[in-house]
Formats: sequence, structure tokens, C-alpha cells
Amino acid sequence: MLKKVAVIMGSDSDWDIVKKAVDCLKEYGIETEVHVMSAHRTPAEACAFAKEAKKNGFGVIIAAAGMAAHLGGVLAAHTTLPVIGIPIKSSFDGLDALLATVQMPSGIPVATVAVNGAKNAAILALEILAVSDEPLSEKLEKMKEDMAEEVRKKDAKLQQEVNK
Amino acid sequence: MLKKVAVIMGSDSDWDIVKKAVDCLKEYGIETEVHVMSAHRTPAEACAFAKEAKKNGFGVIIAAAGMAAHLGGVLAAHTTLPVIGIPIKSSFDGLDALLATVQMPSGIPVATVAVNGAKNAAILALEILAVSDEPLSEKLEKMKEDMAEEVRKKDAKLQQEVNK
Amino acid sequence: MLKKVAVIMGSDSDWDIVKKAVDCLKEYGIETEVHVMSAHRTPAEACAFAKEAKKNGFGVIIAAAGMAAHLGGVLAAHTTLPVIGIPIKSSFDGLDALLATVQMPSGIPVATVAVNGAKNAAILALEILAVSDEPLSEKLEKMKEDMAEEVRKKDAKLQQEVNK
Amino acid sequence: MLKKVAVIMGSDSDWDIVKKAVDCLKEYGIETEVHVMSAHRTPAEACAFAKEAKKNGFGVIIAAAGMAAHLGGVLAAHTTLPVIGIPIKSSFDGLDALLATVQMPSGIPVATVAVNGAKNAAILALEILAVSDEPLSEKLEKMKEDMAEEVRKKDAKLQQEVNK
Amino acid sequence: MLKKVAVIMGSDSDWDIVKKAVDCLKEYGIETEVHVMSAHRTPAEACAFAKEAKKNGFGVIIAAAGMAAHLGGVLAAHTTLPVIGIPIKSSFDGLDALLATVQMPSGIPVATVAVNGAKNAAILALEILAVSDEPLSEKLEKMKEDMAEEVRKKDAKLQQEVNK
Amino acid sequence: MLKKVAVIMGSDSDWDIVKKAVDCLKEYGIETEVHVMSAHRTPAEACAFAKEAKKNGFGVIIAAAGMAAHLGGVLAAHTTLPVIGIPIKSSFDGLDALLATVQMPSGIPVATVAVNGAKNAAILALEILAVSDEPLSEKLEKMKEDMAEEVRKKDAKLQQEVNK
Amino acid sequence: MLKKVAVIMGSDSDWDIVKKAVDCLKEYGIETEVHVMSAHRTPAEACAFAKEAKKNGFGVIIAAAGMAAHLGGVLAAHTTLPVIGIPIKSSFDGLDALLATVQMPSGIPVATVAVNGAKNAAILALEILAVSDEPLSEKLEKMKEDMAEEVRKKDAKLQQEVNK
Amino acid sequence: MLKKVAVIMGSDSDWDIVKKAVDCLKEYGIETEVHVMSAHRTPAEACAFAKEAKKNGFGVIIAAAGMAAHLGGVLAAHTTLPVIGIPIKSSFDGLDALLATVQMPSGIPVATVAVNGAKNAAILALEILAVSDEPLSEKLEKMKEDMAEEVRKKDAKLQQEVNK
Repeated sequence: MLKKVAVIMGSDSDWDIVKKAVDCLKEYGIETEVHVMSAHRTPAEACAFAKEAKKNGFGVIIAAAGMAAHLGGVLAAHTTLPVIGIPIKSSFDGLDALLATVQMPSGIPVATVAVNGAKNAAILALEILAVSDEPLSEKLEKMKEDMAEEVRKKDAKLQQEVNK
Repeated sequence: MLKKVAVIMGSDSDWDIVKKAVDCLKEYGIETEVHVMSAHRTPAEACAFAKEAKKNGFGVIIAAAGMAAHLGGVLAAHTTLPVIGIPIKSSFDGLDALLATVQMPSGIPVATVAVNGAKNAAILALEILAVSDEPLSEKLEKMKEDMAEEVRKKDAKLQQEVNK
Repeated sequence: MLKKVAVIMGSDSDWDIVKKAVDCLKEYGIETEVHVMSAHRTPAEACAFAKEAKKNGFGVIIAAAGMAAHLGGVLAAHTTLPVIGIPIKSSFDGLDALLATVQMPSGIPVATVAVNGAKNAAILALEILAVSDEPLSEKLEKMKEDMAEEVRKKDAKLQQEVNK
Repeated sequence: MLKKVAVIMGSDSDWDIVKKAVDCLKEYGIETEVHVMSAHRTPAEACAFAKEAKKNGFGVIIAAAGMAAHLGGVLAAHTTLPVIGIPIKSSFDGLDALLATVQMPSGIPVATVAVNGAKNAAILALEILAVSDEPLSEKLEKMKEDMAEEVRKKDAKLQQEVNK
Repeated sequence: MLKKVAVIMGSDSDWDIVKKAVDCLKEYGIETEVHVMSAHRTPAEACAFAKEAKKNGFGVIIAAAGMAAHLGGVLAAHTTLPVIGIPIKSSFDGLDALLATVQMPSGIPVATVAVNGAKNAAILALEILAVSDEPLSEKLEKMKEDMAEEVRKKDAKLQQEVNK
Repeated sequence: MLKKVAVIMGSDSDWDIVKKAVDCLKEYGIETEVHVMSAHRTPAEACAFAKEAKKNGFGVIIAAAGMAAHLGGVLAAHTTLPVIGIPIKSSFDGLDALLATVQMPSGIPVATVAVNGAKNAAILALEILAVSDEPLSEKLEKMKEDMAEEVRKKDAKLQQEVNK
Repeated sequence: MLKKVAVIMGSDSDWDIVKKAVDCLKEYGIETEVHVMSAHRTPAEACAFAKEAKKNGFGVIIAAAGMAAHLGGVLAAHTTLPVIGIPIKSSFDGLDALLATVQMPSGIPVATVAVNGAKNAAILALEILAVSDEPLSEKLEKMKEDMAEEVRKKDAKLQQEVNK
Repeated sequence: MLKKVAVIMGSDSDWDIVKKAVDCLKEYGIETEVHVMSAHRTPAEACAFAKEAKKNGFGVIIAAAGMAAHLGGVLAAHTTLPVIGIPIKSSFDGLDALLATVQMPSGIPVATVAVNGAKNAAILALEILAVSDEPLSEKLEKMKEDMAEEVRKKDAKLQQEVNK
């Protein structure tokens, strides 16, 4: 059975962005747990969650935070599960959150996706789970083909608009 | 048996950095294949490699490239395996490579680590493989404890220096 | 007869910007083909288009993309036609798209214009075609004189406003 | 009696910079404790230190770290003592460390000084302790006057050089 | 008795931001004085205020300014009280104000908080005063616990929303 | 017969970089003229050159300049030939030169290549000339294949090193 | 009699900003001439204006332009009058215009003011003219005192608001 | 008789850069006074100097400072003489010094030149003095012609090198 994915956000104000990750994971049938936990305001909860995550059946942790976005790093410090970081844009176009998430020191990686890239965080989590799960891997290949098909349709539609 | 990890770099001049990833992967007994393949100079080889990677037994692809670093994105476009991107510093302190690697559009994530963060790319690959491999997971927890122990030793050594 | 110009955009959401390039090219009587093709979602189509572009009568390819804007580079990797890149602004004020477009490695140039500079991309394409086409060259000199005249008129109008 | 100052650095490679803070504090007779503790490699030690710092007689904590510099924030999350952050330059001219230190979310401030500004971190710690200690306050005013005098001497020396 | 806190802003247009600092300080019963004083338009007033601040019973000065934000530095040049700088965002996303506030030369620190981080400036001032005031220190620990509790409530509320 | 390419640099100190463009153009048998002409110190010469360039048999102008790099824009203002801009790195990692070259207003494009990207400027000039010259176009396809072959050889060599 | 001031803007869309400079200059009785002239679209007019400016009774030229803002530099290349540059914000928060205006090569300075700093450009022009005109100098000192008085009034008003 | 120029630097470590300004001013026979005065360490001296500068026969003040470069602004706050700011590079490639110098609030301009642009600061000062001094103005036109001639010689020399 597939492991669970945890989606942790530093503030409930990030929910509009983060929801896209949760929706995507659920669409693929992944059991997902969502939490508001702050690296700075509830560090004990965040650390405890990370420490117990593997034992509690999680395979991947997604962390979303803005500004001096320490959440991904703090979770990664307490687990050997892959931690995916979503830098949330709230100042400096998200550059502070991006650098605070991606520039981790040697030994403690955080797999960083684009600023506000919640959906890609979910897809990356799916790809990680799919490494050892052929059915999920096939679903992802189907998704890739669907995306291509959608682009092709948009191209076709554009042809009509441009040439009419 | 654990899947293989592919380490692709855009230029052989990146080898000094990338070698740290390869060494780390081998230290953990992961079968690793290294290639120089360019998103721009040998796109056919790069695409073909990515397309066949899963079938050829790979579980994770690491891509290292500098400047307008397209390699990670180009590989990710042709596979559903997780692709880890190492932005290589060669201009703008690596900011161009970082943004060109991490700011992927929705649908095609690249799991980005710090600029020149080759070792962290390897550890992230290990964490991904360990999601479904308990022995590797335990080795990673051992590594985490060793890192902590090393810091503790440095702290102890510093106490002696400062107080002597 | 003048060669055709291809205008490729990575997403149909770029159309509002890109349309200015198409309008400008058509105004000068250039046969123009527009496509939505993504370096990441439909890489096969994009590569195939670039590979066949010269044979299909194209003289210049314009590529518009945002974020980690790989489209220009991916097309340039598969053709020796001049490829013009329009960085589309969607994050970081377009800095990510600019760097991902312009910072190409040695051997594979992308002729980059300003962020969202669709009209300039079209004019650059016209200038390229005009290198071997005197009538088009003369039209461009006319356009340059018209632009100057327009500025002169604005200056004259300003004189009235300021001194009234 | 004056409270102690703790100086924590994320890596022993920061010692050359951080030493200036320690030297300055000792020069003013402040009892100072120095540690290598990492927000990511020894998070438990770092958290425990911060939690116990007030009880253990500390009045101020100085934290020095580079890259995704989480150390100041992690310590501040576990104490109500003022935490001073020194962003250490190791990549992006220290911009990543600066933003990761200063851009703290509401509720958990880190008093940030200039990149590599170890001496200023120490002076700020002295100023904080001096709020309730008149003798230290007078020493700081003396230091300020000495600095002014030093600048005046340099100016006098320059006059001789320029006019000779 | 606790010392007073001065809140100085460079322009009355900063009041909407700065008010949060004043409100927070008053909530904790700190006597607070607010002024509009400009490092450039009323330098004499600003310098005189800083010079007399300690004698007038202030323990901490908070300075808020935008653009080439010299206010914090100018005040710090005339006092040995801790000066806290709030960079106000009005151009370049506040990067100019941040750098002009934090990058102080050796000898004259300004304790910088996040761009527009008025509430954190107040909390930092409270932490500084609390170094020698146990009752205030306990109030701050209470505030920290309240913040944690608030996050926990938000997490609980989210659980209901996500799972309903 | 192929048109000539002009290579103009703002300062003779740029010659080490610019030489790579000249060498590349000569290698492909393109008649090339090189000049030191400054948008600011010899504006008359620069403007006159651009105005006469087409009449004098040039097909493309390459302009290399650093800092507030106006040279490309100034030349482009006086010609309808395609102007290629090479931002030269001398401050801010070349960011000032890049933005001053690429961010041209509507109507006057400068085809910008990477910072210090002299060779790519030459290749872009070749691609432009090749639009109407099949033999040159074929040489460029040969060059592309040679580049690919070179990468393949480096990959083969790496295989030996890694596996020995 | 005082010399005239010329205010040149690259585009009539800059008028809303630039008007503040013109209004300020007129308020101080300076004869002011305003023009729309583009470094790229009407370079001949711009160069001719600069060359003749001194002879035509101008003492200072103010140039306002955005993006790759070459106007100040192009005017400065053709005159020895002081040229003041106003970087106009239209992309990258005005960073491109700022760098393109201020980073002039040795020999050709442009006196740069803040992004969109039209009023300061006018005041700087007044200060320059006042170097040899005592009555204007006295007016400027009056203005400085008025500004201070205005800040004092705002401070007084704030005291009422805060303490009511 | 021409007014004097004051050159103030924030630290004697800036002398190597600043000397170029002094040398240039002296070459044109301008009486020049040089001082080390710090906006932060000797604010009283700096303010007093600025306040008395006009009375003491100065026509222009040049201020050179790095990091959070407040010197230009602090001097400008106390005088109505034109103040020229040279941002000195010591961190962030001089971006902090540039922004802290140029982004002055409305009312108090600092005429900013390029990072480390000491010679241009001197030329700008000469241009300002020349507004009311025809002989100096003629010397500057001669300098401009000499610069052009020097570029022409470099061009001629290059022609020989390239074509030999």
C-alpha cells in the first residue's frame, strides 16, 4: 500500500495556494494529511511531527512557507523522509522564501519547487511514491500524455482563432 | 533490489562539483551511471536517456547544469521519474541556474537543491529510494546521527580552543 | 520570396502579449504561423517543429515563454535558424524568464529581447529577413522615420500643453 | 551582575568571522559562551540550549549562520531572550543568509546586523545589556567617543598626506 | 520601573505600518513616545532626540523609514541605546530600505527586523526590556504560548474543513 | 556574396572577450570589421558607422559594452540592420550591462546574448546571414553536429574515468 | 540672469512623473523647456539638442527615461553641461532604468536621482544653478526650513492623534 | 574665482578609490579639501562641515561611502550645495551603497554616480562649477575631445592588430 503524504503549511493564510497540492494528491488517491504548523510558533509540534512521520506511515512531507521560510528545513532536520519545499510568495516576489528553502547546507536537502508551485510539489511527491509503485507510475505517464493533449488542443484552437 | 541513479551533467566542466554526488551515492552502494549530456548540444541523447530511464532500471535522475540551466527541465519533460536539479554556479552567483532550474511550470517539477549542492542532491536521491527500502532508510538515519556527532565534536573542540 | 516566421508560445495564456508580434509581422506582409507548444508538456512537437522549420520554409523562429523559460533554448537546440526569445513576465518581474532565455551556453544562442517585448521580437525578425531583401529593408527605414515623426508630434503637442 | 551572552554558530567554518564578536564581548568583561550548533544537524541541542538559556543566566543570544540561515530563527522560536542574527556570507554575497535571518514572520523577531557583521552583533548585545547597567552604558559611550577620535586622527593623517 | 520606548518614523505616511508597533508596546504597558522625525528634513531634531533619549528615560529606540532609510543609522550615531530599524517598503519591494538599514558599518549597529515588520520591532523592544525585568519576561513567554495555541486552533479548524 | 559583419566594442579593454566573436566569424569566412567606438566618448563615429553600415555592405552589427551598456541601443537607433548586443561583465556580475542592452523600448530591438557571450553573438550573426545563404546554413548544421560529437566524446571519456 | 533648465523625457507617457520637476522649477522662477525626445527613436534631435544646449542658454539638462534608459547618457555624450538622470519605473521596479542611468563609464557622468525622483531632479538643478546665484541659494535654504517646519507640524499633529 | 570642492569619505579605506576624484579636480586647478568624516562615527563633524560649507567657500561636496552609505544623505540634509554621492563597493557588489545613496526621499537629492565612480564624481563637480565659468567649460570640452581622440587612437591601433 502506498505511503501517506503530509502537507504542512506555516500559516493558514497559505491555504489557497497549498490546497492545489492537496487536491492533486487526493485526485491520485493518496492518503493526505494537512496541518498548520509553524517552524517558529509551534516548533515543538513541527519537530515532533517530522520525527514521527516515517513511523506514522508517511512517505513524503511537503512544507509550504513564506518570508524566511524555515519550515522545510526544520522538518528535514528531524526526518530522513524526502521533504519538498514550496516557497510561498509574500515579500520580495518570493525570493526570500525561495532562498530560505533551497539554499540548505550540506547534509539536509529540501527538494524545492517554484514559488507558489503547490501543484508541482504534489506531482513531485507522486513521482517519489511511484518509484516503487508501478500503477501510480502509469497514472503519471497518463497525466503527462493528458497534459500534452491539452496543449495540442489549445494549439488547434489557436489555429482557428488566428486564421479565421 | 534498489533502483539505479543517473547523474547527468550539461558540461564536463561541472565534474568537480558533480563528483561529490557520485561519491556519496556510491558510498551508499547505489548503482550510479554518470553522463555528460547537454540539453542544447545533444538534446536527442538527453531526451532518449530520460525516456528510457525507467525501463533501464533507474529510479531517480540528477541533472546538473549552469547558466540558463535547462537540463533538469528537459529531462523531466521526458520522464515521470523524480528529477533532481543541481544549479551550477558560473555566472550571477548561480542565480540564473537556480531560477532556470526551480521555476518550472505546473506539471513538470524539478526537485531543486542549493547552488552547487551536489552532495544534497545525492542525499535527496537516497531519501527517495529509501521511501520503499528500510535498510537504506536506516543507513540515512545513521548518517544523520553521524553528522550530529561530528558537530558535537567540533563544538567540544571549540570549547577547548576558546577557553584555553 | 520572403521566408516565413514561426511564433511559438509556451502557454496560450501568453497570447495577449504574443499577439503584438503576430500583428506586426502580418502588417509587414510576412507569412506567419503561430503555435502553442511547450518545451515541457509537448517537447516532441516542439523539437519536431524546430527540426523541420527550415525545410518548411521558415526563416526565423520566435519563442515566448515565462518562468524557467526553456522554449527558446529547446527550439534553438534543434535548428540553425535564428531563434528570438521573448521572456514573458509571470514571476520575479520576468527576471527568471529573462535569465533562462538569454544566458544560453556557448554554441546555441537565443536572440533575446526585453521582457514582454513581443513587438521588438517581430521587428528583429523583420530586420533579419531584410538583410537579404531590399524592399523589406526600405519598409523598415520608413517605419523608423514614422516612429521619429510620431515622437516629434508628441513633442509638439507637449509644447502646446506646457506653454498654454 | 551582568547576564551572559551566548554566541552560537552553525558551522565551525564561521569561526574566523564570529571570533570578532567574542573578542569584543570579552573586552567589555561580558561572560561569553561559544558553541557550534546547527539548526539542521543538531537541532535538538540548539533548541535545548535556547529553551534553557534564560534559566542558565544568559541575557542575549547571538546566532551566526550562512546560506538558508535558519539558526537565529530556530533559537528565537524557543526563547524570549533577544536573539541577534549575523548573516554569514557564503553564497549570493550573503543575500540568502540576510533574507533568511531578517525576514522573520510576525511574533518571532531576530535582530539582524550586516552580513558578516560580527562586531556589530557584539556591540548590539552590549547595548542591550547596558539598558539596565549604567557602568556598561558609560563604557559604550566611551567607545563611541574613541571611535570618533580614531576617525579624527585618520582625517588629520590624511590632511598631511594630501597636502605634503 | 521599565524604561520608555521611542518610535520614530521618517514620514507620517508610514503611520499605518508603524501603528502596529505602538499598539503592541502599549498592550504590554510600555510607555511609548511616537514622533515624525526625518534624518534628512529635520536632522537636528532627530539627532537631538537620540542624544537625549537615555537621559529622558528611554531604553530602546525604534526607527521606521523607507527608500534610502538613513533614520536608524542617524539615530544610532547619536546614542548607545539599542536602535531597532524597520525598513518600510516603498520601492524595490523594500530592498533599498532593508539594505540601507541593516548594512551598518562596524561600530554602529542597527537591530533590523523584516520589511514592514513593525510588530516584530515592538516585540524585540519588549524582549530587550525584559532582559532585566522578570514580569515582562513572563508576559512574553505567555505571548509565545498564546501564539502557539492560536496556531494549534487554526490547525484544528483546518482538520475540520479538509475532512468534512 | 555574403554581407560583412561589424564588431564594435565600447572599450579596447573588452577585446579579450570580443576576440572570440571575431575569430568565430573569420573561421566561417565572414568578412569582419572590428572597431573601438564608444556610445559616450565617440558618439559621432558610432552613429555615423551605424547609419552607413548597410550601404557599406554590412549585414549584421555586433556591439559589446559593459556597465550602462548603451552601445547596442545607440547603434540600433541609427540602422535597420539587426544589432546583436553582448553585455560585458564589469560590475554587478554584468547585470547592469545585460539590462541596459536587452530592455530596449518598443521599436528598436537589440538581439541580446548572454553576459560575455561573444561566441554566441558570432554564431547568431552567422545564423542571420545563413537565412538567405544555403552553404553557410549547411556549415552551421555541420558545426551543430560537431558540437554534439564533442559532447559524446567527453561522455565516453567520462565513462572510462568513472568506471576505471 | 539664471540659465535655463531643459527637461527631456524619452516618452510622453513619462509626463505624469516628469511634470513634478517642471512644476518645481517654475515655482522657483526658472525658465524651463520641456521636450519629448528619444535616445532611440529621435536620436538626431536628442543629440542636436544636447550639442546646442549650452549655446542656447541652458545650464542644466534633466533626462527622464525608463527600461534601458539611455537618454541621460546620450545627452551627456554631447554636452559638458551637468545632466541629471531620472530613472523611470516601468519594469523590474525601475532597477533596469536606474542601472542604465547611473552606471556610466568614466568620463561621462550622469547625476542620478531616485527612481521616479522628478522633484529631486528639479531641486538638484536648482542647487546647481544656485552655486553661482545667492538669491536662489537663499530660496533653497528657505525651502529646506519649510520642509523641516512641515515635518514638525506633522509630528505635532501625530502627538494629538496618539495621545487623544 | 571658482568655488572649492570638498571630498568627504566615510572611511580612510576608501582613499584608493577617492584619490582619483581628488587628482582629477586638482588637474583642473580646483581647490579641493579632503576629509575622512563618518556619518555614523563623527556625525557632529560631518554635519558641522556641511552646514558651514557654503560659507567656507565650497561650491560642491562629494561624498564617498560604502554599505549603508548614509554620508551623502547626511551631508545633503545640512546644506543646499549640490552633493555628489559615490557609492563605494564593499558588499553586494556595491548595490547596498548605490541604493542607500541614490534612493533619497523627496526634498534632499544626492547626485549619484556609478559604483566606485570617483573620476565621474569629479567631472560632474567640474561641470557644475563650469555652469557659471566659461574657461572651465572650455577645458571640459577640450577634455571631451581628448577622450574621443584617445578612443580613435585605440581604434586605429586595433585595426593594425586585427589585420596584421
